[in-house]
Amino acid sequence: MDTKALRYVTYGMYILGTMDGARPTGCAVNTVIQAASEPALVAVCVNHDNYTNQCIKRSGGFAVSILSEAAPGDLIGAFGFRSGRTDDKFADIDYEAAPGGNPVLKSGVCGWIECRVTGFTDLKTHTVFFGEVTGTALFGGTPMTYAYYHDVVKGKTAKNAPTYEKPEEAADTAPASETWVCPICGYEYTGSDFADLPDDWVCPICGAPKSSFQKK
Amino acid sequence: MDTKALRYVTYGMYILGTMDGARPTGCAVNTVIQAASEPALVAVCVNHDNYTNQCIKRSGGFAVSILSEAAPGDLIGAFGFRSGRTDDKFADIDYEAAPGGNPVLKSGVCGWIECRVTGFTDLKTHTVFFGEVTGTALFGGTPMTYAYYHDVVKGKTAKNAPTYEKPEEAADTAPASETWVCPICGYEYTGSDFADLPDDWVCPICGAPKSSFQKK
Repeated sequence: MDTKALRYVTYGMYILGTMDGARPTGCAVNTVIQAASEPALVAVCVNHDNYTNQCIKRSGGFAVSILSEAAPGDLIGAFGFRSGRTDDKFADIDYEAAPGGNPVLKSGVCGWIECRVTGFTDLKTHTVFFGEVTGTALFGGTPMTYAYYHDVVKGKTAKNAPTYEKPEEAADTAPASETWVCPICGYEYTGSDFADLPDDWVCPICGAPKSSFQKK
Repeated sequence: MDTKALRYVTYGMYILGTMDGARPTGCAVNTVIQAASEPALVAVCVNHDNYTNQCIKRSGGFAVSILSEAAPGDLIGAFGFRSGRTDDKFADIDYEAAPGGNPVLKSGVCGWIECRVTGFTDLKTHTVFFGEVTGTALFGGTPMTYAYYHDVVKGKTAKNAPTYEKPEEAADTAPASETWVCPICGYEYTGSDFADLPDDWVCPICGAPKSSFQKK
């Protein structure tokens, strides 16, 4: 079955933070919604394979930091493409503890929502956590959408540039498109112009040098 | 507790369709996510007070039509602000039955996703339905976000116009702002220029005439 229509569901981009004992950990997620009101409940989906999943089940709490369009790509990269089991993902992050103790980002975000887990539903690949909102902060700005992340943050052309094409459209018109893969974080650069990128170009997600990229 | 940060969670806009016996019904929703994969599961939240909620529980299926930015405001208005208990919401809608029998929109949408309910979680105010994807269609276009709906469809200034202001910013600068309420659908027009709107201006949601609006 063709499931491309699922790509047209709209999401935001969030850093989900929780505590692993006394240590903050977390991951980047897109599936956050307000699922109910009176009191406000937030739902978030986390893959079973993600270390954050078991940490939330143990700690009973989490915080959702709402990424803004101003968030740099390497901030998201710091939370994706590696595991909180072994890495301290918050090591280089500007964060603080929310009142409930969960880590929240202080920059690159529109605000945050801290929650106490009230229940969860285990699906085959993911857990849907439900959390009652216990605290919030609002800084403002424009929330980063998942589409913006894919089209702009990971893209190679500024959104306001006249040459900007949405990836779906670009795929129809780009001649001799190639894909080059970052060996560090797995980021894939697709286009016909990889060779034309400047020598000091780096992976927009993790900062690896252009010279380390491998053709797929 | 200040919950304004919840407004910064990103959503799309969807028409959720299901069957009430042999009759199509549905409602407008924003809380749709892909909750799991292998197989793909969609989650959607529906208020207990909404007639669509009990119809989905009875029928065991639903379809999510993904609204595009090209969808007119009165299309959304046809699904909101009234109940499928008494009204035939699909009466004036360009729709068809998806393979599983659920109604899907043929215009104003990027595509649709039909699902078979695999389970649900009842929260205090809402039910979260989980549905396995059984069919999809993709037409393309730009998905309408909830923010776009609020800022542009319900707004009074085109998004690309130089005078366009996001509502949060506008609230700080608009002089002598007033709110006028549509007596039919409850749509609220807020601004300092209601009197300046042309006499043939109508409610962007339900089409009620300007003259019927009441000052709040």
